[in-house]
Amino acid sequence: MHLRFLADRLRAGETVFCGWSALTDPLAAEAMARTGFDAVCLDMQHGFHDVQSLRGGLTGIVAAGASPVLRVPFGGLPEVGRGLDLGFEVVICPMIDSESDAIAFARAAKYPPLGGRSWGPARAMMLTGSSKEAFLQTANRRTLAFAMVETREALGQLDRILAVEGIDGVFVGPSDLSISLAQGTSIGPGVEGLAEAIKMVAQRAAAHGRIAGAFAQTREDALAYAAAGYRFIATGPDLQLLAAAAADLIRSLRNPT
Amino acid sequence: MHLRFLADRLRAGETVFCGWSALTDPLAAEAMARTGFDAVCLDMQHGFHDVQSLRGGLTGIVAAGASPVLRVPFGGLPEVGRGLDLGFEVVICPMIDSESDAIAFARAAKYPPLGGRSWGPARAMMLTGSSKEAFLQTANRRTLAFAMVETREALGQLDRILAVEGIDGVFVGPSDLSISLAQGTSIGPGVEGLAEAIKMVAQRAAAHGRIAGAFAQTREDALAYAAAGYRFIATGPDLQLLAAAAADLIRSLRNPT
Amino acid sequence: MHLRFLADRLRAGETVFCGWSALTDPLAAEAMARTGFDAVCLDMQHGFHDVQSLRGGLTGIVAAGASPVLRVPFGGLPEVGRGLDLGFEVVICPMIDSESDAIAFARAAKYPPLGGRSWGPARAMMLTGSSKEAFLQTANRRTLAFAMVETREALGQLDRILAVEGIDGVFVGPSDLSISLAQGTSIGPGVEGLAEAIKMVAQRAAAHGRIAGAFAQTREDALAYAAAGYRFIATGPDLQLLAAAAADLIRSLRNPT
Amino acid sequence: MHLRFLADRLRAGETVFCGWSALTDPLAAEAMARTGFDAVCLDMQHGFHDVQSLRGGLTGIVAAGASPVLRVPFGGLPEVGRGLDLGFEVVICPMIDSESDAIAFARAAKYPPLGGRSWGPARAMMLTGSSKEAFLQTANRRTLAFAMVETREALGQLDRILAVEGIDGVFVGPSDLSISLAQGTSIGPGVEGLAEAIKMVAQRAAAHGRIAGAFAQTREDALAYAAAGYRFIATGPDLQLLAAAAADLIRSLRNPT
Amino acid sequence: MHLRFLADRLRAGETVFCGWSALTDPLAAEAMARTGFDAVCLDMQHGFHDVQSLRGGLTGIVAAGASPVLRVPFGGLPEVGRGLDLGFEVVICPMIDSESDAIAFARAAKYPPLGGRSWGPARAMMLTGSSKEAFLQTANRRTLAFAMVETREALGQLDRILAVEGIDGVFVGPSDLSISLAQGTSIGPGVEGLAEAIKMVAQRAAAHGRIAGAFAQTREDALAYAAAGYRFIATGPDLQLLAAAAADLIRSLRNPT
Amino acid sequence: MHLRFLADRLRAGETVFCGWSALTDPLAAEAMARTGFDAVCLDMQHGFHDVQSLRGGLTGIVAAGASPVLRVPFGGLPEVGRGLDLGFEVVICPMIDSESDAIAFARAAKYPPLGGRSWGPARAMMLTGSSKEAFLQTANRRTLAFAMVETREALGQLDRILAVEGIDGVFVGPSDLSISLAQGTSIGPGVEGLAEAIKMVAQRAAAHGRIAGAFAQTREDALAYAAAGYRFIATGPDLQLLAAAAADLIRSLRNPT
Ligand SMILES: [Mg+2]
Ligand SMILES: [Mg+2]
Ligand SMILES: [Mg+2]
Ligand SMILES: [Mg+2]
Ligand SMILES: [Mg+2]
Ligand SMILES: [Mg+2]
Repeated sequence: MHLRFLADRLRAGETVFCGWSALTDPLAAEAMARTGFDAVCLDMQHGFHDVQSLRGGLTGIVAAGASPVLRVPFGGLPEVGRGLDLGFEVVICPMIDSESDAIAFARAAKYPPLGGRSWGPARAMMLTGSSKEAFLQTANRRTLAFAMVETREALGQLDRILAVEGIDGVFVGPSDLSISLAQGTSIGPGVEGLAEAIKMVAQRAAAHGRIAGAFAQTREDALAYAAAGYRFIATGPDLQLLAAAAADLIRSLRNPT
Repeated sequence: MHLRFLADRLRAGETVFCGWSALTDPLAAEAMARTGFDAVCLDMQHGFHDVQSLRGGLTGIVAAGASPVLRVPFGGLPEVGRGLDLGFEVVICPMIDSESDAIAFARAAKYPPLGGRSWGPARAMMLTGSSKEAFLQTANRRTLAFAMVETREALGQLDRILAVEGIDGVFVGPSDLSISLAQGTSIGPGVEGLAEAIKMVAQRAAAHGRIAGAFAQTREDALAYAAAGYRFIATGPDLQLLAAAAADLIRSLRNPT
Repeated sequence: MHLRFLADRLRAGETVFCGWSALTDPLAAEAMARTGFDAVCLDMQHGFHDVQSLRGGLTGIVAAGASPVLRVPFGGLPEVGRGLDLGFEVVICPMIDSESDAIAFARAAKYPPLGGRSWGPARAMMLTGSSKEAFLQTANRRTLAFAMVETREALGQLDRILAVEGIDGVFVGPSDLSISLAQGTSIGPGVEGLAEAIKMVAQRAAAHGRIAGAFAQTREDALAYAAAGYRFIATGPDLQLLAAAAADLIRSLRNPT
Repeated sequence: MHLRFLADRLRAGETVFCGWSALTDPLAAEAMARTGFDAVCLDMQHGFHDVQSLRGGLTGIVAAGASPVLRVPFGGLPEVGRGLDLGFEVVICPMIDSESDAIAFARAAKYPPLGGRSWGPARAMMLTGSSKEAFLQTANRRTLAFAMVETREALGQLDRILAVEGIDGVFVGPSDLSISLAQGTSIGPGVEGLAEAIKMVAQRAAAHGRIAGAFAQTREDALAYAAAGYRFIATGPDLQLLAAAAADLIRSLRNPT
Repeated sequence: MHLRFLADRLRAGETVFCGWSALTDPLAAEAMARTGFDAVCLDMQHGFHDVQSLRGGLTGIVAAGASPVLRVPFGGLPEVGRGLDLGFEVVICPMIDSESDAIAFARAAKYPPLGGRSWGPARAMMLTGSSKEAFLQTANRRTLAFAMVETREALGQLDRILAVEGIDGVFVGPSDLSISLAQGTSIGPGVEGLAEAIKMVAQRAAAHGRIAGAFAQTREDALAYAAAGYRFIATGPDLQLLAAAAADLIRSLRNPT
Repeated sequence: MHLRFLADRLRAGETVFCGWSALTDPLAAEAMARTGFDAVCLDMQHGFHDVQSLRGGLTGIVAAGASPVLRVPFGGLPEVGRGLDLGFEVVICPMIDSESDAIAFARAAKYPPLGGRSWGPARAMMLTGSSKEAFLQTANRRTLAFAMVETREALGQLDRILAVEGIDGVFVGPSDLSISLAQGTSIGPGVEGLAEAIKMVAQRAAAHGRIAGAFAQTREDALAYAAAGYRFIATGPDLQLLAAAAADLIRSLRNPT
């Protein structure tokens, strides 16, 4: 399939755009992958995916030549290893609020000596075509663990999270971060302190040699993230794209100009 | 849920717009239904639905207050009764090319004396809340059988198809009709004879007191169908809406202006 | 599992009771099987089963020591062979209205020279543990094809249907038969001519050396069928049993005496 | 759908009855909902549900006008947020044995400042039709977190559990509580101390202004719970209702009186 | 993915080997594809596939660089078009016993003017990346329709079947053919007349410029078919390969030498 | 089904061989069970199983007369109870590295007073046919909890792990253990210290009266484990058996001798 791992592209400084899929029909993710996204993320946290839909979606993304990305659910350490075994190149873990959260995540995502990932990548090896030894030697480098930074607490421990060995990058969840900063009173880009936090995360990630990623609600946000130094920019959940397109369509049918 | 059956609205002369779903995730159809479409069609012919995805999609459409519509596969007479038993209000059957095709379809879709539909609407009765006797008395009227007119042969037998008791309407498939008219040499709106055929179908349907329906590839086509007298206008397959929206998004991210 | 095939028990003159499952959760059918029903039927016509739910349900029925029975959908000749390949002992086919319907059904259900069933019973052979040759020699005898008699037309051709080689029995569908006799004006046990027809079917089946079966709406109907000479008596769809039990329960909670 | 949230009804002092579903076929839960239960609970702990069956069951319950309730598995904090995102109004969490268990559960179930629930309720917002801001402001109030009290340890920390902010009620699991009180030597209503514990839980819940809920094995138990001050009373697992009804039926067929 | 369509390879005279999958887990088919088979066939007739498992299996086969092949069930004309829409390159149809069977199959498999295949190849176009016009112009050539020749009747009409426009090849089912030749008394390679029939089919196919294919029970049969002029040779159902390997393993563990 | 629980056989000193299934098609596991394996393990850690595939696979294994075994995912304590409720006789839990890990696992797997397993074994009771009281009294004895020993840390705490009440045995994962011993630099049987560790585990298990189990990569390994005193020996993942058999087949077809 694709010739380069997302990890290599990101480490080379490329800015990559990642589609986002909540819908379990495998063609939703594959269709996004075929439009030109570098990667597509299957979302187990707020999307509807489970192990079986991950399998179908991943194969479609790979067949389309894009890189498969997984967001596990909150508390989803069991899914980190399962996802990597299936062949996901990137795993995003929500609500990494502390150094100890980050250590537990890295432990699940990386083979020794970095972590304690358990051996069993039958399907991932199918995709890479490598031997057991070769897979073991390259897996920690070729797969990326992104810790979600999306609370006041995470901002407070940001440097310690970034310093954890095995954490390849951080991924900003702006909705949760805005709620956390606003202490539950509001949500959205206008929350006080959010813009500064977003800038700061990219700077600290760069200082630690980690990749900065973020979820962008809009095209404008995505470009702003890119300008701010983010290199892994996700956007466009399929359910919202579909709902918006359908709403536009029926509106225009009801109100022909 | 919704207060009026699509059959009643169409018989009252209302123009209704129907979304179209190929994707099996039940939220794809429900999301379309919630944007304001009067109905959403689950497609077993060229979409990916099966009995289980029909069940999930239908309940979502109904919960959203829209009318559930089914297109069965080519040769899918077994699915006609199964779909009506599940609670679909409209069944569209492809490739009805002759009077005998139409009779077989009507036989599957209507209870005696109009046809030979078999009794067993446990789930449909849940949705209408009616007794067995009441359901039997009203089902033939409250559900609609649309015969697809999409070949040169069907045009040739149009009046005989329209005259079959139990056929409530015809539904134009413009892609297949264009291919058929062009004898396989071309596809699309430019094929010679297509525009005339589309006009003619609406006129003949009206002459027989039947409802004219059609699949519209674009918003413009949909409005043109409405202007030509079509009352049941389907459009906007979810997979295409999603793919187009995703393509727009990634294009705009790659080429910020 | 069970020591005797349903075919052998029925041919020996035993009266067997068969549960009925519309629900796709495999434990619905297995739970019925474990209560003491001789067999449980998975219904693809008015129930919600598909090939995957058949597989799960069948294994549960077999594990419970009962005999697995399948009703295919209207027009479901493709499912006849697939069901027998999976290991169903009995296949019930709806709406066999004529001798030619019966011949087509027998052809799908029986190996040569009786019919044209296609070879490929990998899973059924797992269950019987027999060799290819032994399976081929015994399959036509160990599996039963029941033709549903449920229309005025079928009654008119009853003797010819019963005479078709490969048809092991007839199975009365009283709801459809009542609708057909009433020409769509009514449904249910009170329809004129229904009681006589039910008696007549058992007599003619006996005269032809075929097994008479029927679907019983109630316990009383089931016992009446048994008294009338029916030997294969199905009853108690899981969805209705569950709905009735739940309705009783909530009623008793709302109205404590 | 339904006009009032279960939370509002319970806070207004209404006694509500909740059906219980272990079976994954979506019509099992919907059928219970349509018989008049105020709510139906889909059980991921001892029932067979997963994320996909939750989605189907929930939509059916909502379409029937009842309130959807979820019991997550033991240790199922990831499922708390996923369930609320899908639109469940109530989440029941098993084996809350200590104040710290309760705090972790509340953190998963409530948005800041009460907890740390993560934002992403796309499907729940579809059902309520509210904006992001409105949803955020009302979600903590409109959804209920029930902590299961079902061990000796939980009884010992009952007041501390009840005092945790974000815990809306407690839910008694009488089987586990009886086992725990009997230290594994017995199960059931006769275990010493169980009756007193059940009374005490309702009293302490009332003292803390929390809702008392319980699982009732029988109709009599349900009415006894109501009399004891319980307001959220669950009963009638579909699998048991079905098995009992099937057993009655086959018994009456074997032993006609 | 793969650079050449199976149709082009077969028309160029290449001998291709096709794996066979009955199991619905998508990795069973993909694993076979990755071992070096040119193609893998998903079997809906005697295997356990349905539309959803076809989708998963096909994507895996394609991702592995092999060509996806489908066998539809007996009577499965609806699945012919659905399969081609999904992107299968070859469709095998069982029990083509007469010229009229062959015509109906070709009609379902080919666009006008060869047949009446209905337009809607959204997913197949994703895989080929072609425009609508280009897809229409090439589809009849790039996809292959194989008619199964597996009865005495089919042998009798072989030349007429081979002459039907749109039938690209014939595919011998030796088990059914042996049963048919033996009139149900036996099965297997020793049946009288089978060996001659197999030779004859290849010769007549060559004479008509059609491709000869066959299902081989063993490696030796496969090589014999190749020697006899067969170009499309399927073998090795996954379920049997697995069962045989597991039997070998447990036998060797029980009887260590 | 089978007459003796695996627990009884193992406690009686029998050596049992357990097949291993990663594939979700229920016939993969059942086919292994029917070849003569004493048990078959469904793998949720590195295999592809989820709750629904566990249900189908388990019933097939039981119908074949073998004992169902489950490996839960890393961190999969919620699945321990769910699996036992479904009727698995053995649960294997990965990465038990410390006494506290072992205590948490035993707590999930055993009813009081040994642990805190929650009551709700509706389906398991179906399989054993026992009453609630009888099930409660026998479950802790009839089901086995195997703690995976597969890290340097686990070896260091081996005696403490083995001493935990409720841990019935240990199960060696040689791949992970080799990686851990080699600190991530290598994998496989040649890693220094692995052979000694494997011997030591069996000896310590025997000293504690616990059962020693292990996963064997090859037939030779399996026999070596048996010789070293291991009594529960798992081997032969279905995906690998299938892939190896398919590779052999295509190789022999390409290179006929
Ligand atoms: Mg977030
Ligand atoms: Mg068409
Ligand atoms: Mg009927
Ligand atoms: Mg409990
Ligand atoms: Mg055949
Ligand atoms: Mg391991």
